[in-house]
Amino acid sequence: MINETMYGYGASKSSIREIAAYGAARKAQIGAENVFDFSLGNPSVPAPAEVAASLKASAELPPAQVHGYTPANGLPACREAVAASLSRRFSAEMGERPVADADDLYITCGAAASLTITLHAVTNPGDEVIVIAPYFPEYRVWIETCGCTCVEVMADASTFQIDADAVAAAVTERTAAVIIDSPNNPVGTVYTRETLEKLAAALERRGQETGHPIYLISDEPYREITYGAEVPWVPAIYERTIVCYSYSKSLSLPGERIGWVLVPPTNPEHDRLVPTVAGAGRTLGFVCAPAIFQRVLIDCVDVPSDVDAYARNREALTRGLAEAGYEYIEPAGAFYLWVKALELDASAFFERAKAHELLPVPSDSFGCPGWVRVGYCVSYETIVNSMPAWQALAAEYK
Amino acid sequence: MINETMYGYGASKSSIREIAAYGAARKAQIGAENVFDFSLGNPSVPAPAEVAASLKASAELPPAQVHGYTPANGLPACREAVAASLSRRFSAEMGERPVADADDLYITCGAAASLTITLHAVTNPGDEVIVIAPYFPEYRVWIETCGCTCVEVMADASTFQIDADAVAAAVTERTAAVIIDSPNNPVGTVYTRETLEKLAAALERRGQETGHPIYLISDEPYREITYGAEVPWVPAIYERTIVCYSYSKSLSLPGERIGWVLVPPTNPEHDRLVPTVAGAGRTLGFVCAPAIFQRVLIDCVDVPSDVDAYARNREALTRGLAEAGYEYIEPAGAFYLWVKALELDASAFFERAKAHELLPVPSDSFGCPGWVRVGYCVSYETIVNSMPAWQALAAEYK
Repeated sequence: MINETMYGYGASKSSIREIAAYGAARKAQIGAENVFDFSLGNPSVPAPAEVAASLKASAELPPAQVHGYTPANGLPACREAVAASLSRRFSAEMGERPVADADDLYITCGAAASLTITLHAVTNPGDEVIVIAPYFPEYRVWIETCGCTCVEVMADASTFQIDADAVAAAVTERTAAVIIDSPNNPVGTVYTRETLEKLAAALERRGQETGHPIYLISDEPYREITYGAEVPWVPAIYERTIVCYSYSKSLSLPGERIGWVLVPPTNPEHDRLVPTVAGAGRTLGFVCAPAIFQRVLIDCVDVPSDVDAYARNREALTRGLAEAGYEYIEPAGAFYLWVKALELDASAFFERAKAHELLPVPSDSFGCPGWVRVGYCVSYETIVNSMPAWQALAAEYK
Repeated sequence: MINETMYGYGASKSSIREIAAYGAARKAQIGAENVFDFSLGNPSVPAPAEVAASLKASAELPPAQVHGYTPANGLPACREAVAASLSRRFSAEMGERPVADADDLYITCGAAASLTITLHAVTNPGDEVIVIAPYFPEYRVWIETCGCTCVEVMADASTFQIDADAVAAAVTERTAAVIIDSPNNPVGTVYTRETLEKLAAALERRGQETGHPIYLISDEPYREITYGAEVPWVPAIYERTIVCYSYSKSLSLPGERIGWVLVPPTNPEHDRLVPTVAGAGRTLGFVCAPAIFQRVLIDCVDVPSDVDAYARNREALTRGLAEAGYEYIEPAGAFYLWVKALELDASAFFERAKAHELLPVPSDSFGCPGWVRVGYCVSYETIVNSMPAWQALAAEYK
């Protein structure tokens, strides 16, 4: 018999992808310039030239040298390059402690793989995993696929920083892990050092009280996309951290599926977690990450992200929406603006926005009522040209 | 708590990969030319020049056009190219019935992904999945990860064709699916039309008797690697077939992870299976297959596999081993030779082979005693130069 759970996940698509599909169809109907699609997190900044150079160089090599199986955890040279880069960047925060060695890394087919692998490694069926709402909606899918319960803890209602007391209150004896992502999707918040220290203290205390240490899964695809804010290195603050990363946003390679899981050497369960991550990857069907993009990482691991275009978009969008009377959370990172809906029901607000050809994502999809996410990883012209529509939408509510 | 099942799968590596790792270490010790590593299925034939040309062409395009997210089931142009190719090749076998439409395909990150996705789509925890022993050992890992039982049915002891009566006898009310792969890994058998028709009749009969239709998962990464044998199109013979494919062997791209799942339009459950496959991919963490290799498929889907090198290796290996007195199954496809161990215990035989620097894979890994798999996807020189060692090994047993 067909697996009805899988049917359900396939038949009810991600609401973000549904809006994007509507946007694409609508563009075909009325012209791309007349639809303002802010739904997807597909980077508008192109991959840096170094990526193309690396791909061409690989294509010149003997194919057997490039396209063969790599070790399941990735090419040693790739893991060495990533570990060296992380060590350069975060050793100051770690003090005397090591940041990462090549063997602590497991190269993955992107952020989704990093997260499903990590969740399968640190949970058992019946466990609970805490997410900070609003949150990336696929977290729930992946948590439930592990046979676990997704427990939503609302972020602080005004700052959207983590509410450590609320997390502490939500921890039970079945809590296996907490997932955080900073810079945050969908809000654009960057968690401060103080926020993370409070969270760490709460998790350590509650872990001791329940007798079950709690893992912190730090999902960091937006680490490089910031506007001046510090993004603290989480393993320096909480020992039982596992870091999940992807180059989808930093190198603008979302379709190529390349990222990693890091089990920091300071994690007290390190020696058992490393093979457990490998075992989870094996069972899910990840043989290795795409070999040619492992080579791209060797060449491009330290290529800086081009954040200027996003910064310019952010400036134009926030200024325009402020002038039109919208409230929003000032984003410190990522490329999303979290805008207050002009009525309580975000989905109803979205329907009215849609009538103006504006396509943000209603916040219900992220486990939080009353807002929309406006992805500004679009062309500058899209933002500028959308302003009359935003103004007309606001006028309807006056 | 760490998931002990995943730890187990990570700590106990694939025996094939363990032998390969031993081989690599041994080569470093005594020189690559002195170790005859027949363990891995890493193609020795390089990827065709068309692949490099496609990669270079993609690297010349605007990066946003190439590296962005694709639809979860793959670029429409990629699915159209694959569907058109399949239709050209197999419409004669299907008679009036359609072979494949673009929307019947789900492009995957390689064969392992194709199989884990398909297994998650057509099984429920507690089900049984039948494999034909000897079989690719990861089948068991993936079946068990679905919460199912892996039921081994031995192939015919002399021909290694499927024993349809034995399969029929193994079917229970909990049987969800049967996995076959032809050309077969590890034996190199190609299942004849007669074999497949008998299997289909047995599955149809037993499906009716148990009241549960049975899915046939046809895993076909070696379809293009044959030495004259016909490889029948399985959906033409059994309606409830799902085809899993990979370009790892046909285009020599095992590290790049690109393949597909086909739900044939003739499958009676087609309309529900298509979203179920997508749902399974979503839950396992497969967002899309590597975008640049989806473009490679558009350019290279009909590039013929270079089988000549394997044919030459096969000839030299079988002739050499026959002269040395070994028995083996004449391989009709793939690039493995199934050689009878010279003692009952294949692992003991392997240890003695190892002393001669010969590294086949003992058949116990494949759920079958008394044989070894000799992968001839190696250089011709490796085969020729290994002959004195094979002879010396045989002499020990005289």
